[in-house]
Amino acid sequence: MPLINIKITRDGATAEQKARVIQGVTNLLRDEMGKNPQTTVVIIEEVDTDNWGIGGETVTVLRARK
Amino acid sequence: MPLINIKITRDGATAEQKARVIQGVTNLLRDEMGKNPQTTVVIIEEVDTDNWGIGGETVTVLRARK
Amino acid sequence: MPLINIKITRDGATAEQKARVIQGVTNLLRDEMGKNPQTTVVIIEEVDTDNWGIGGETVTVLRARK
Amino acid sequence: MPLINIKITRDGATAEQKARVIQGVTNLLRDEMGKNPQTTVVIIEEVDTDNWGIGGETVTVLRARK
Amino acid sequence: MPLINIKITRDGATAEQKARVIQGVTNLLRDEMGKNPQTTVVIIEEVDTDNWGIGGETVTVLRARK
Amino acid sequence: MPLINIKITRDGATAEQKARVIQGVTNLLRDEMGKNPQTTVVIIEEVDTDNWGIGGETVTVLRARK
Repeated sequence: MPLINIKITRDGATAEQKARVIQGVTNLLRDEMGKNPQTTVVIIEEVDTDNWGIGGETVTVLRARK
Repeated sequence: MPLINIKITRDGATAEQKARVIQGVTNLLRDEMGKNPQTTVVIIEEVDTDNWGIGGETVTVLRARK
Repeated sequence: MPLINIKITRDGATAEQKARVIQGVTNLLRDEMGKNPQTTVVIIEEVDTDNWGIGGETVTVLRARK
Repeated sequence: MPLINIKITRDGATAEQKARVIQGVTNLLRDEMGKNPQTTVVIIEEVDTDNWGIGGETVTVLRARK
Repeated sequence: MPLINIKITRDGATAEQKARVIQGVTNLLRDEMGKNPQTTVVIIEEVDTDNWGIGGETVTVLRARK
Repeated sequence: MPLINIKITRDGATAEQKARVIQGVTNLLRDEMGKNPQTTVVIIEEVDTDNWGIGGETVTVLRARK
């Protein structure tokens, strides 16, 4: 009955991409750890680039510089 | 001073329902564990059904099938 | 299918207290929001008082002062 | 490679304020714990006042009373 | 730069199993969403069965009944 | 009333270091966002290096290679 929380930047991930990630993570935990897929819960959180920092800068600023 | 994080699917919970859940959880932790309600914090996060998976499928897909 | 995460300071909460909180929160979400108890998951995390701060001080320090 | 998650009420924090908080937390963990800023990740989550409770009441209600 | 948090019950998962899950999730996010593996962070949290509830009961109690 | 969760690898951070980080983050949110320090909560979680992955490998493995 694992719980998986995935945080990504909000970049237009499609419903199909999210569905494949949910299925893939659920299968991975079944295959590698024997976890029951029926009670595996996956939550995806999409975070604005203004609200995500790495190396002391926001992703918004990092991308603008490139 | 407990912190409680509640994740639910985004399904139109009203402000009144959320207020009752906040009050109920706060009272429960006071009654069962002696926690001080004044410093009990409850946060409710509402998650889109495309972003919530159980059993390897999104809640969007599971509900469409019913 | 709500997910509830409860963080408390590590203060010797008993298995019975934790079981009652788990049951109480599950019932509360059923009663106030119509959530299915069978898929409600509650996780309790106990945090050392050195690792919990409020008002800029650790709980260890706050309690020692009293 | 610390991960920092900051939850605040949604009150109109500007991109500049969020950028300064991200930089400040990253510097703090470098200065106090020797953590590498390049792999320090900070995420800010803004929560509606209806979804944040303290003392058993929502922030919406607490502010309306004042 | 996704962040993945995986909560499982504390059941003796080995370092090898955890390493394979970390690698698998990282590859999945690269393959399905184009995320950079170098900045993908995965954290696994193991939770005592007394502290994990589903259906209103702790996993400790559910397993003892079987 | 911000909530801050800081995850670091378990590397022997001292109580004094943790206390300074708690104070520093609390002051930062007061100074940059006007948040009330009295209700600012900071939690530090220390994670075993077997349970922390970056770039698809555990920190245990990454450090052994160096």
